[in-house]
Amino acid sequence: MKSQKFKVRFNYMEVCLKPLSTTGKFSKVVQRKCFLPKDHSGKCSEFHFLSHLHTVKSSVSNKIRRDSTHTTGAAWKSSDAGPNRIFRWAMLLSDEELLEYGLDMSALKPGVQLKLREKAADYDSCIEVAIKLTYLTYNMAGAPTPPDEIKNYLEAHHGSFDLGSTKCEICQEPLNFALFNEAKVGRAAIETCHLNPRIHNAQNVGFGHRECNIAQGNKTLEEFYAWIDGILKRASL
Amino acid sequence: MKSQKFKVRFNYMEVCLKPLSTTGKFSKVVQRKCFLPKDHSGKCSEFHFLSHLHTVKSSVSNKIRRDSTHTTGAAWKSSDAGPNRIFRWAMLLSDEELLEYGLDMSALKPGVQLKLREKAADYDSCIEVAIKLTYLTYNMAGAPTPPDEIKNYLEAHHGSFDLGSTKCEICQEPLNFALFNEAKVGRAAIETCHLNPRIHNAQNVGFGHRECNIAQGNKTLEEFYAWIDGILKRASL
Repeated sequence: MKSQKFKVRFNYMEVCLKPLSTTGKFSKVVQRKCFLPKDHSGKCSEFHFLSHLHTVKSSVSNKIRRDSTHTTGAAWKSSDAGPNRIFRWAMLLSDEELLEYGLDMSALKPGVQLKLREKAADYDSCIEVAIKLTYLTYNMAGAPTPPDEIKNYLEAHHGSFDLGSTKCEICQEPLNFALFNEAKVGRAAIETCHLNPRIHNAQNVGFGHRECNIAQGNKTLEEFYAWIDGILKRASL
Repeated sequence: MKSQKFKVRFNYMEVCLKPLSTTGKFSKVVQRKCFLPKDHSGKCSEFHFLSHLHTVKSSVSNKIRRDSTHTTGAAWKSSDAGPNRIFRWAMLLSDEELLEYGLDMSALKPGVQLKLREKAADYDSCIEVAIKLTYLTYNMAGAPTPPDEIKNYLEAHHGSFDLGSTKCEICQEPLNFALFNEAKVGRAAIETCHLNPRIHNAQNVGFGHRECNIAQGNKTLEEFYAWIDGILKRASL
């Protein structure tokens, strides 16, 4: 039973964790759960912490759900380009198991297979990422104000709110909530980024400018800084 | 007659410039010409300086022809994404003229129109770029040796050969000819790059690593250096 390897890491806050009934392609791979505080009243919910953002700016809450739980889409189109978006936890399954779900990894180019496997993350890490991104969103200058219940929940995970403290993880400039509205050729100006592109968990994930994220590429942030430092040194010789 | 605005800039070497008979969609827009030295023997030729490279490594000579004369392809696919590749000089025509050639600019998104227009270059500039790129290619470490006739022609334009002197314009690391063979997910490791992405002429064009070119994005090289300098300063605070 695959889902047993997804250990619960919410030890800094007691959460409900009651199983939710879900359907869909990979619903048997992971038991999705309620992440409301333990002994909450009312219905169980997986993404309750996004409920307010969903009412005021659904494009942003949808983005957070998508980026935290799914691999990014293939930027190119061809039969061997791989699936457009897939649950990150599906990428923890073996090639044989994925075949049962209709995904033939062996038909993909080695580079594409590797890229998909690098996006793998367990279910709990994905939820932790969603909580972190929600926290960072509310701490952007110009962000809406969440109800106390959600604010308290997020602060229990990541400390007191500090409006305006959310920066691009890469260039360290403050990120304004309004940037979510700006799009260049159909792409958002803010992207979810990774200090290490091959690790998807709360510690390693944040927001960045699209142009910064593109410049970082598949380097770790540390490698990126070392790389541009070398460029500047050679360019000024 | 549009072709009159393409003034001849080959004043540092007398070239033949006899008109070549060409066919194809935009053949009436520009009079293509022979760029062999004046009073050459044998047949006229537009890209004679690529003839040797074409026999030893046609993928590279084709790349030089393509990058020097065509816009880059649309990276995304949709009805309003614009043409995949088009002659750069076609982008000097008015919207009305382009409509006669079956390209309805007004059907493209403003951002796509702007991007295409930024790729515009006159015919002579494109040939100058091809000559420059050929020169840079032969000066990469590991490059094949051209026949004297081609070497002399290229040196008349850009000075004495200095094998190993060709560097990535962006990161300033030497570029090896073997890099043309390396491809990541179907893309070449070496790209044609622009010190200013909106100017396509010999002075402004060179080769760069794909990852460097992506990082530079639509900034000028000067803007890029200033940008990464700012990042490093903020990151080390």
